[in-house]
Amino acid sequence: MTGSLTIAGLGPGSEALITPEVSAALGSATDIVGYAPYVARVAPRDGLTVHASDNREEIGRATDALRLASEGRHVVVVSSGDPGVFAMASAVFEALEASPQWQDLSIRVLPGVTAMLTAAARIGAPLGHDFCAINLSDNLKPWSTIERRLRLATEADFAIAIYNPRSASRPEGFVRALEILREAGASERLVIFARAVSTSGEKIEAVSLRDARPDMADMKTLVIVCNSATRRVGGWIYAPRSAR
Amino acid sequence: MTGSLTIAGLGPGSEALITPEVSAALGSATDIVGYAPYVARVAPRDGLTVHASDNREEIGRATDALRLASEGRHVVVVSSGDPGVFAMASAVFEALEASPQWQDLSIRVLPGVTAMLTAAARIGAPLGHDFCAINLSDNLKPWSTIERRLRLATEADFAIAIYNPRSASRPEGFVRALEILREAGASERLVIFARAVSTSGEKIEAVSLRDARPDMADMKTLVIVCNSATRRVGGWIYAPRSAR
Repeated sequence: MTGSLTIAGLGPGSEALITPEVSAALGSATDIVGYAPYVARVAPRDGLTVHASDNREEIGRATDALRLASEGRHVVVVSSGDPGVFAMASAVFEALEASPQWQDLSIRVLPGVTAMLTAAARIGAPLGHDFCAINLSDNLKPWSTIERRLRLATEADFAIAIYNPRSASRPEGFVRALEILREAGASERLVIFARAVSTSGEKIEAVSLRDARPDMADMKTLVIVCNSATRRVGGWIYAPRSAR
Repeated sequence: MTGSLTIAGLGPGSEALITPEVSAALGSATDIVGYAPYVARVAPRDGLTVHASDNREEIGRATDALRLASEGRHVVVVSSGDPGVFAMASAVFEALEASPQWQDLSIRVLPGVTAMLTAAARIGAPLGHDFCAINLSDNLKPWSTIERRLRLATEADFAIAIYNPRSASRPEGFVRALEILREAGASERLVIFARAVSTSGEKIEAVSLRDARPDMADMKTLVIVCNSATRRVGGWIYAPRSAR
């Protein structure tokens, strides 16, 4: 029996944002592998085995998934949002690199709606012009790299989507990030705090960077620092298509 | 009768990548507004009026959509990919700003799977680390701004997703973009050319920037310039989660 490994994005939370492609993959899986809260989003059924793990065990989880597929199982590794954006896809390929015996396995990556797109849609169109996405978690990169990227992104006048603003390992990182952005001259820019978008806990607020406070973000918040041209129209916030 | 305006993303091309939320909106619409090839992706049915327009008429199209909604119609403005990424959402809010009489209309933006996420998923996980997205079309911004952003993005070691690499108005832009990226020291980086992802015309190739040629991109191509740490494993390309 030939197994398979599918790395699928469940979108930001709402069932209505899961693509039909991902739903079909979940429907034909024998095994679901992932971080416990994401695995819990998949409806249980006869013949489906679930493997829930802790957040910090990405490579172990990826290796387990590859092994199951090599044994003939049809495995779906689930991520929130899109699996390729600060999620499980990179971890699976890292595990694959370490285990050449599995490199002929049938593998697919199925994209999903990542958090920044949903957050942007809820408030208008703050990503309508050039933008970047930065993971503020410093588990796997030095803080100096994060600082440099925040400064260069501000200089480039990108809108900046910040994932994982309140890292568990370094909650002071976001305090420092706001300072860096102000030092880089972005104080007048709008900042959007989008918490748990598309779920019952959704909360969105927008203030100028000058008035942004670190406690406006928690582990479930996606932050968008808008570009300098972004403005309000009615209750909406949008980046004009034109730029200087 | 109270109308509504929904700005919806149809994803990159495949039906299997249209979210249930967007399908529902299309199903209850009275009017579909958009660029002709995107409108053509919506199945005709009794009671549905379609309004197809040319690519360069974004503000006129947005204004028409707002007017229809103000007259009580349930209008869906369709974009390819995600409507908030170099697509119709910004144009609608720009038109709304110019027409304050419509600012109380019921408006929703429904996110979609944007091209870079699908392209990344097809080849592995090149956006698994910090990245940016740059629209190479210079209809609405000076070329000097594009140049500056390409240089800063390379200095930041972002993966760089390039939308609209072969602008109709300035086909030489992509030639120049490749030169700038090489001047900025990115010659050894991998470049992914992803054409018409998720459609029957899909074609993906990856070369080093040194070997990249402008004619590898056309109007339907999304280009991803990988970060400096990105590498191949088997037939896949991925950005490791860690960085220097």
